[in-house]
Amino acid sequence: MVESAAWGHQSVSIEESLWKKLEDSRRLVFELADRGIPIYGCNTGVGWNKDKKVTREFITKFNSSMLHSHAVGVGPYAPVEVVRAVMLVRLNGLLNMCTGISPGIVRMYQEFLNRRIHPLLPVRGSVGQADIGNLSHIALAMTGEGRAEYHGEILPVREILKKEGLAAAVPAEKDGLAMISSNALSAGWASLVLCRAEKIRKAADVISCMALEGFGGNTSQLRMEAAKKRKYEGQIKTAEAMNRYLKGSFLYKANSSRPLQDPLCYRSVSQVHGAVSDALSFAEKELTVQINSSDDNPCLLTEERDITPSANFEPLAWVLPLEMLSIAFSHVSKASCLRAIKLANPAFTRLTRNLSPQESVIAFSTIQKTFTALDAEIRSLANPVSMDTFPLAGEIEDRSTNAPLAVQRLDKILDDLCYILGIELMLAGQAMDLRRGETFGEITGKGLAVLREKIPFYDKDDRILTEDIEAVYELLKEGTFLRKLNI
Amino acid sequence: MVESAAWGHQSVSIEESLWKKLEDSRRLVFELADRGIPIYGCNTGVGWNKDKKVTREFITKFNSSMLHSHAVGVGPYAPVEVVRAVMLVRLNGLLNMCTGISPGIVRMYQEFLNRRIHPLLPVRGSVGQADIGNLSHIALAMTGEGRAEYHGEILPVREILKKEGLAAAVPAEKDGLAMISSNALSAGWASLVLCRAEKIRKAADVISCMALEGFGGNTSQLRMEAAKKRKYEGQIKTAEAMNRYLKGSFLYKANSSRPLQDPLCYRSVSQVHGAVSDALSFAEKELTVQINSSDDNPCLLTEERDITPSANFEPLAWVLPLEMLSIAFSHVSKASCLRAIKLANPAFTRLTRNLSPQESVIAFSTIQKTFTALDAEIRSLANPVSMDTFPLAGEIEDRSTNAPLAVQRLDKILDDLCYILGIELMLAGQAMDLRRGETFGEITGKGLAVLREKIPFYDKDDRILTEDIEAVYELLKEGTFLRKLNI
Amino acid sequence: MVESAAWGHQSVSIEESLWKKLEDSRRLVFELADRGIPIYGCNTGVGWNKDKKVTREFITKFNSSMLHSHAVGVGPYAPVEVVRAVMLVRLNGLLNMCTGISPGIVRMYQEFLNRRIHPLLPVRGSVGQADIGNLSHIALAMTGEGRAEYHGEILPVREILKKEGLAAAVPAEKDGLAMISSNALSAGWASLVLCRAEKIRKAADVISCMALEGFGGNTSQLRMEAAKKRKYEGQIKTAEAMNRYLKGSFLYKANSSRPLQDPLCYRSVSQVHGAVSDALSFAEKELTVQINSSDDNPCLLTEERDITPSANFEPLAWVLPLEMLSIAFSHVSKASCLRAIKLANPAFTRLTRNLSPQESVIAFSTIQKTFTALDAEIRSLANPVSMDTFPLAGEIEDRSTNAPLAVQRLDKILDDLCYILGIELMLAGQAMDLRRGETFGEITGKGLAVLREKIPFYDKDDRILTEDIEAVYELLKEGTFLRKLNI
Amino acid sequence: MVESAAWGHQSVSIEESLWKKLEDSRRLVFELADRGIPIYGCNTGVGWNKDKKVTREFITKFNSSMLHSHAVGVGPYAPVEVVRAVMLVRLNGLLNMCTGISPGIVRMYQEFLNRRIHPLLPVRGSVGQADIGNLSHIALAMTGEGRAEYHGEILPVREILKKEGLAAAVPAEKDGLAMISSNALSAGWASLVLCRAEKIRKAADVISCMALEGFGGNTSQLRMEAAKKRKYEGQIKTAEAMNRYLKGSFLYKANSSRPLQDPLCYRSVSQVHGAVSDALSFAEKELTVQINSSDDNPCLLTEERDITPSANFEPLAWVLPLEMLSIAFSHVSKASCLRAIKLANPAFTRLTRNLSPQESVIAFSTIQKTFTALDAEIRSLANPVSMDTFPLAGEIEDRSTNAPLAVQRLDKILDDLCYILGIELMLAGQAMDLRRGETFGEITGKGLAVLREKIPFYDKDDRILTEDIEAVYELLKEGTFLRKLNI
Repeated sequence: MVESAAWGHQSVSIEESLWKKLEDSRRLVFELADRGIPIYGCNTGVGWNKDKKVTREFITKFNSSMLHSHAVGVGPYAPVEVVRAVMLVRLNGLLNMCTGISPGIVRMYQEFLNRRIHPLLPVRGSVGQADIGNLSHIALAMTGEGRAEYHGEILPVREILKKEGLAAAVPAEKDGLAMISSNALSAGWASLVLCRAEKIRKAADVISCMALEGFGGNTSQLRMEAAKKRKYEGQIKTAEAMNRYLKGSFLYKANSSRPLQDPLCYRSVSQVHGAVSDALSFAEKELTVQINSSDDNPCLLTEERDITPSANFEPLAWVLPLEMLSIAFSHVSKASCLRAIKLANPAFTRLTRNLSPQESVIAFSTIQKTFTALDAEIRSLANPVSMDTFPLAGEIEDRSTNAPLAVQRLDKILDDLCYILGIELMLAGQAMDLRRGETFGEITGKGLAVLREKIPFYDKDDRILTEDIEAVYELLKEGTFLRKLNI
Repeated sequence: MVESAAWGHQSVSIEESLWKKLEDSRRLVFELADRGIPIYGCNTGVGWNKDKKVTREFITKFNSSMLHSHAVGVGPYAPVEVVRAVMLVRLNGLLNMCTGISPGIVRMYQEFLNRRIHPLLPVRGSVGQADIGNLSHIALAMTGEGRAEYHGEILPVREILKKEGLAAAVPAEKDGLAMISSNALSAGWASLVLCRAEKIRKAADVISCMALEGFGGNTSQLRMEAAKKRKYEGQIKTAEAMNRYLKGSFLYKANSSRPLQDPLCYRSVSQVHGAVSDALSFAEKELTVQINSSDDNPCLLTEERDITPSANFEPLAWVLPLEMLSIAFSHVSKASCLRAIKLANPAFTRLTRNLSPQESVIAFSTIQKTFTALDAEIRSLANPVSMDTFPLAGEIEDRSTNAPLAVQRLDKILDDLCYILGIELMLAGQAMDLRRGETFGEITGKGLAVLREKIPFYDKDDRILTEDIEAVYELLKEGTFLRKLNI
Repeated sequence: MVESAAWGHQSVSIEESLWKKLEDSRRLVFELADRGIPIYGCNTGVGWNKDKKVTREFITKFNSSMLHSHAVGVGPYAPVEVVRAVMLVRLNGLLNMCTGISPGIVRMYQEFLNRRIHPLLPVRGSVGQADIGNLSHIALAMTGEGRAEYHGEILPVREILKKEGLAAAVPAEKDGLAMISSNALSAGWASLVLCRAEKIRKAADVISCMALEGFGGNTSQLRMEAAKKRKYEGQIKTAEAMNRYLKGSFLYKANSSRPLQDPLCYRSVSQVHGAVSDALSFAEKELTVQINSSDDNPCLLTEERDITPSANFEPLAWVLPLEMLSIAFSHVSKASCLRAIKLANPAFTRLTRNLSPQESVIAFSTIQKTFTALDAEIRSLANPVSMDTFPLAGEIEDRSTNAPLAVQRLDKILDDLCYILGIELMLAGQAMDLRRGETFGEITGKGLAVLREKIPFYDKDDRILTEDIEAVYELLKEGTFLRKLNI
Repeated sequence: MVESAAWGHQSVSIEESLWKKLEDSRRLVFELADRGIPIYGCNTGVGWNKDKKVTREFITKFNSSMLHSHAVGVGPYAPVEVVRAVMLVRLNGLLNMCTGISPGIVRMYQEFLNRRIHPLLPVRGSVGQADIGNLSHIALAMTGEGRAEYHGEILPVREILKKEGLAAAVPAEKDGLAMISSNALSAGWASLVLCRAEKIRKAADVISCMALEGFGGNTSQLRMEAAKKRKYEGQIKTAEAMNRYLKGSFLYKANSSRPLQDPLCYRSVSQVHGAVSDALSFAEKELTVQINSSDDNPCLLTEERDITPSANFEPLAWVLPLEMLSIAFSHVSKASCLRAIKLANPAFTRLTRNLSPQESVIAFSTIQKTFTALDAEIRSLANPVSMDTFPLAGEIEDRSTNAPLAVQRLDKILDDLCYILGIELMLAGQAMDLRRGETFGEITGKGLAVLREKIPFYDKDDRILTEDIEAVYELLKEGTFLRKLNI
C-alpha cells in the first residue's frame, strides 16, 4: 500500500467514520487539559523542557517556536517517493487516534499527498527515537514555510499553497508534537526499502538461475524432495521458484561430464536466498506493526478517556530485523560475486577465459574488481549502527536506535546490489550466449532476451564496459527486469 | 529438550520404530551402491577429493583416514554441557533417516550420552558449513581414539570403553561422513545459548524493575492500555511480566514530586526487552527447524528409494537471527549500563551520590568503569562475522557462515551480560535498601532478598568490590536468581 | 603541492632534464623487447592473460582493447579537484622513469592539467591494488574518447581536443599499462584528504578553545610544564597552539568558583588532538613515499638496463595509517559532541539550559540529535575495510586493500566533521555571547567575529536551524574559517 | 627492557640519585598541602568526589577506602609476565617524579618484582583512562591484602610478606592515588604485545620464504633494485631479510617453466610485511613516550615547586597505532591463509593435491577450515573499540579509549596468528619435503629442520592433525622457532 501511494498516483482517502473518531479524540485532549492534567507538548514543554508550562495564549507561538528550533535535519534531501511514504505513514499513524491532533492538520497530509506537494526533507539529523528533527521540516511546510517539490519544480511552499488554493495550517494545542513525534521518516522509508528488498531477492533468484545455465551446473540441489527434508519455508519457496524459472532447461538433462557437486555459491542458492526470505518475512511482520499502530507519546486513550506518557516511539522491534537484513543481503552479494568470478574460469565452465568470444578479445578481465569493490562497501554497511548513541537532553533521552541510518544503509546495500547482480546478469547472459544451441529455462530464457534488449553480446573490446554496467544497473534498479518477466 | 539432556541427567531413548527405519535406510545405501550410483563419502572421496573412487575393501581404512585427517579442531575444549548438546543434536539429526548410517553407530551416541562419556571437543576450526573438523573428534572417540571427560576425569577413550564394557565403533560405508557432515557443533551449542538468552532476558526484566524501584521512577510507561496500542507481542508480554514483578510496589502510588518522564533507559524497558523477545522467538523458530530436520549431504530419500546431493548443510537461516540477537543483547547491555549510571546520580534519584550509605563512604564510584568496559566488549561482539570467509577446497567450498564463531560470540555476550546485569542488580539492591520503609513489588522484593543472601548491604569501604561482583555474576550465570524467584 | 595544483591555477611544468630521461627510458623498453625479454603489458597480455603474447603489429589494437575492457569504474564521478590531483600524482609517478612510457603521453598529462581538461572519472570499481578500472577512463580521454569537464561544461573529449588544437594520444608499446597500472586514484585523492584533515585538526583546536570559553572552563590542563612532562610532539604542539589561540582570555584569570577539573572532553583536548596530530604526521610520511616513488609493475631499471616484475603497486603502507586516521577523527568527533552536549547543561556552564537567550525561547534543544546522528555515521566509517577482499583473476590477484574506499571513507568522515564541529562552533559562539563582557582570546575572539559574519546570535525561535547549520558547515568545508583567522 | 624483566629474571635496581629526587618530590607535596593548595587525592577526594575534602587524620582510612572501593576488576587474571610488566612500567612511571609518592611505596614495587611476588590482577574493568580499577588490586596486595602468585603457588599476600620478612605498605597522603592513577595495566601489557608482534613479524618473513620454496615461486619481486624504487623503509628492510633467509635457494636459479608472476599473496610479501614493519615502528615510538614519561594527575612540577591538574593520563596517542596494528596483522593473517590455500593446489604448485604424499592419502584437505576460521576471528578483532564508551562519574569522565581491550585484542590476534602461521609453516615444510632434492635457503632450510624436530613428514592419515597444529603453535608462541634460527 505504502509502495503504490509512494511511487504511483493512487489517491489517498480517509473513511468518514475515522473523521468522527478524530474529532472525538481532539475533544478528549481539551477535556483532559481542562481537568488540569499536564499533557506533554500541550500544556508543558517537550524534551528537556518538559518541566516548563505552556499556557493557552501562547500555544501558537509555542508551536511555531518548536517547529523552527526542531528543524535541524541535514542533507541530502529525500527522494520524492520517500517523502510520500513518510507523509503517508504519519497520516496512517494519526488514524490510531492516540494524538488528539486537529482534524484539519490530518487533512493537510491528505492534501499534500493527493496534490503531490513534497516538502524538502533532509534525511539526516535523527537518532531514531522519533524523527522530530526531520519531520519538523514537513510540519513547517504545512504551515507554509520552506520549500517543496511540486510537479518537477522546487518552489516556496507558500507559492504552491496559493496555486492550489490551500490555506496554511495553524497548529494548535498538541498539533506540533503530533506532527513530529513519530518515526515516520524511518518507518516510511523502511516500507519502501522492504519492497525493494523483496524485488531484489526475486531478481537474484532469476539471475542465479541464469548464471547456473551459463555455468553449466547441476540442478540436483533444487530437487524438492531434498528441500522438503530441510523444512525451511523460505528455502522450499525459493527452490520451487527456481525450478519454475528453469523449467525446460538443458540443465535437467543428465550429463555425465558434469562434476557431481558445484561450488557452493551455485549449490546453496535456494538455502541462502531462502534464509533471506525468512528474514525478510520477519522484518515485514515487525514493520507492519509499527506502521499500523501508534508510536505516540503521550498516548491518548480514547476508551479510557485518559492520556498516558509512553515510550511507544521506541522502534527497536523493527530496527533489529532491518539490521539483520543488511547482514542477509551481504550474503546475497558475496554469493553473487563468487558466481560471477567462477563464470570467468574455464576450469569450471569449460567455456573461454573471461567469457571472451574469441582468443584475441580481452572481455571481462577487470570487471571482477568492480563488483568486489562494491561488495566491500556492502560488507561494511552490514555492520550494525543501532547502538552507537549518546545520552542527550540532560541525559533524559539516553538511548536510541539510529533507525534512519539503519534504513539508509540497507537501502544503500540494495542499491549496490543492483550493480553486483546486474554484472552477474551480464556475465550470465554472455555465458548463455556462448552456449548457443542449448535450451534455456522458460523464465531464464526470457531473462536473456530482456538483457539483450539493453546490451548486445560482447564480441569486441570496442565499448566502454562502464556503459554496459550502468545499463544493467538501471534494469534492476527500476524494477524493469522483473516487470518484463512478469513474475 | 536439548537443554535438560545437556545439563541434566535425563536419559536418552529411541523408539523401536525408529530403529526399524534406520535399518531400512541403511539397506537403501547398499542397494544404491550396488546399482553403481556414485555416493559421496561412500564410494567416492569427500571435499575436493569427490572425484576419487573408494572401493569396498578400503572403506575401513578410508573412514579411519578421513577421521584422522579431518580432526583439525583447535582449542579451547567445549564445556561438558555443550558436548552433550552436540551429540544429542547429531543423534536427533540422524533420526531424519537421510544418512543411511549403521544403526550401531547411532547407538554409540545414545551410549555416550547415557553413560556420560564426553569426548574432548575443540571448539574452533569450523567455518560453519558443517562442522566436520570438530565432529571428527567425537567420531574418533567413538572408534576408541582420543580422550574424553568421564565422571570428572579426563581419560583415554579406550580405557573408558573398557570400563563400560563397550566395543569401539568400526565405521563402515558412509558412516564416517554421516558422523561429521553436520552442523551439530554450532546447532547444539546454539540450542543452549538460546535457552541462556531466554533466561537472561527474563532476569533483565526483573532487575530493571528493581532498578526502577531503586531509582524511584514512574510506572506509567507500563500501563497495559498504552502497550496494547503498540501491538508488539514481545512488548505486551514484557509489560505484563513487569507489572507482575512490581505488583504492590510503592511506585504505583501517585507521587507528585516525580518528574513526568524518566530517562529512556527506564522508560522504554518493555519496548526494548519486548523487541529482544520478538527477535528471540524468531531465532528459536529457525533453529528448531535445523535441529529437527536433515542437514545431510548427500541426502537419502527413503520413500523415493534414491539419494541426492544437497546443500542442506547451509545454516544461514538460523545464523542470521543469531547475529541479530547479538545486536539485540547489545541494546539490553547498554540500557542496563545507563540505568546503573543513573542510580549513582542524586540529581535523578534524590538518594546519595554513588549510593553511598553515608557521607564518608566512597561506595560505587569506580564500578561504572567495570560494566561499561564490558559493554565495549559486547559492542564489538555484536558486529557480524558470518560473511568473513574464503573460498576453500579448490574453490568448491566457497561460501560459509562462521556459524560456530557466531554462536560463541553470542554466548560470550550473554556471559558478559551476567556481569553487567549483576552489577545493576547490586546497585538496584543498594538503592532499594536506601529506600527502606517503602513497599516493594512481589517479585522485586523477593529479588532483593535473594541478592542479600549473597552480598550484604554496602555500608563501609572495607571489602574488595570485585568479590561482590563475582557473587552476583554467579547468581545470574548459574540461573540461581530465577530459580529462587520461581519465575 | 598536490593541493595547490588540484584546487588552484598553478601550472605544471617539467624540467628539461626529465624529458631526456624519459626518452632514455623509452629507448630501454625497446632495447629489452628486442632482446626478446617478455615484458608484461608490452609484448604480453595483462592480468590473467599474462600468458598471452602481444605482437608489435597489434599493439595499438591491444591498447585500445585493454582500455575499453578495463574501463569498469562506476559512479559517482570524482570532483574536479580530485581528477586534477589524480592526474598530477600519476604524472609525478611517471617521472620516476620506471615505466618507459612514450614522452608524448606524459605531455598529455601536463596539457590536460594546464588546459583544465578533466575527464569524467567514476570513483568506484577499484579494489585498491592499482586503480586500473578507473584510470582507464582518464587514459581513454587522452585517446579522445569519453567526456570531460572543461571550464564548467561536460563535453565529449574529442570536441575539447579540437577546440584546444590538441591531437589525441595513440598509446604504443607499454603506454596503456603505464597509464593505468598505478594507485593514482587513491593516492591523488588521499593527498587532498590529508590536507583537509590537517585543516580540520587545526579548526578543531580553535573551536574547542572557543567552546572552553563558552563553557567557562579551566586552562590548567594547557600548562606547558605539564605537557612537557608527557613528551608527545603532537600534544606539545597542540597545547602551544591552544594557548596562543586563547592568549588574553578571561579563562586564565583565577576564579575560585570553577570546579578543579572539567569534564574530560574539555580537559584532554591537547592530548586527543595531539594524538591525532602524531597520527597525521605518520600518514603524511607514508603517503609522501607513495607519491614520490614508483608503484609500477613491471619496474624499469634504467641504471641496470633491465626490467623486473614487481609488486610495488601494493599500497598497504599508507592505507594502514589512513584507516588509523579514520579512528582518530572518530575521537575528535566524539569529543566535540560531548563538549557541545555539555554547553547545553546549566549544571556545568551556569548559563541557561540549551543556551536559550531567555526563558521562553527553546533554542538548541534538538540539535544534539543532529550531531550525534552524524557521529554514529562516523563511528561506522571508522571501521576498517582494507581486508574485505576476494581472490580475483584466476586467484592471481588474491589480495588487495580497498584503498579508494578507505580514502573515500576518511573524506566522508571529515565532511561529516564539518557539520559536527560547525555546530560546536555555533554553540560555543552562543555561549560566548551569553558571557558578554568577558575578554576572549586573541584568536578565539576573532573566531566569534567570523562566525557572526555568517549567523547572528540566536535570540528567537524564528529561524529554521538547518539553515544556520548549513552556514557553519560551509564555513569549515571551504576553509574560510581558518583563512579568515590567518592561522 | 620491559620484556626481559617481565619474562626473565633480571633484577630491578634504582639509582641512588633517583631516591634523592623521590624524597624531594615527596617533600614538595607536603609543602604545597601546607600552603592550603587543594591536591586531588591528597587533601581532596577523587573522581566525582573531587569536591570533598580529606583531612590529614583520615588519610590512612581514606586510602584504604579508596583502594577497596576502587578494586573493581573482573577476570580473567593476567599472566605472570603481564603482572611483572605492569609493576615495572608503574615503577618506571613513578621515577618521573610527578607524583610525590612515598619512597617506601616505590621500594615495594622493586621488592615485589625482585622477590617475584605477583598479585592476582584481573584484566577487565578499566575503560582505558588510567586503569585504576585494576591497579587497585596490586596496590591492595602491597598493603597486605588479597592473593598473589609466588613461585608457582597462589597464596594470601599476608603470608608471602611474612615469609619474605617484608612489612606491608601503609599508604599515606597521595600514595593511594599515585599507585592506581596510571595506564600501567594497558601500557605494561602493550610493551609485551609489541615485542610479541615484532617476533611474529619476523617469523612471518621466514615462513613466507619457506612457503615460497614449497610453492616453487619467483624471487624477482625481492630484487633490491625494485625495492629501492619504492623507498619504504619497512619494505626495503623486509626484502633484504627475505633475501638473506633464502640465500642459496634453488628459487634463484632461472626456471622457464615458472609463470612470470605468482599470486599476490606470494608476490607482495615484502610490501605487506614491510608496511606492518613501518606501522610497528610508529607504535613503538608512541608507546615508548608513554612508558618513559608521566601520565599522572595531578602532575607535580618539582622545578617550579608547583602542582597542576593534568589530563596526561589520556593514552590515545599510543592506542591509535595499536588499533592500526590490529588491522595490519589482519593483513598478515589473510596473506598467510591465501599462501596456505595455494600450497594445496596442484594447478599452482605442480605438486599433489592437498600436498598428499601419495594418491591414497587424504592429507591436508580440511585444515583450510581451521586457519580461515581463525582468520575470521582476527577480522573481527581488527575492528576498533577505542571509541565505544559512556560518559561516567557524573559525566566528568566522559571520554575514554578502552586501552586494555585494544591491547588484549591485539594480543589475541597475535595468538591466533601463531596457529595460522604455524599451519602455513607445516604446509610449507610438507611442500618443501615433496621437493626433496632441491637446495633450500640458508635460513629456510634450517627452518625446515626446526619444524621436523617437532613434527615428522606427513606420510599417512594415521595421526590426529590437531596434535600437529598444537605443536607448531607452541613453536611460534614460545619464540622457539626464531631462537633456534638465531635471527
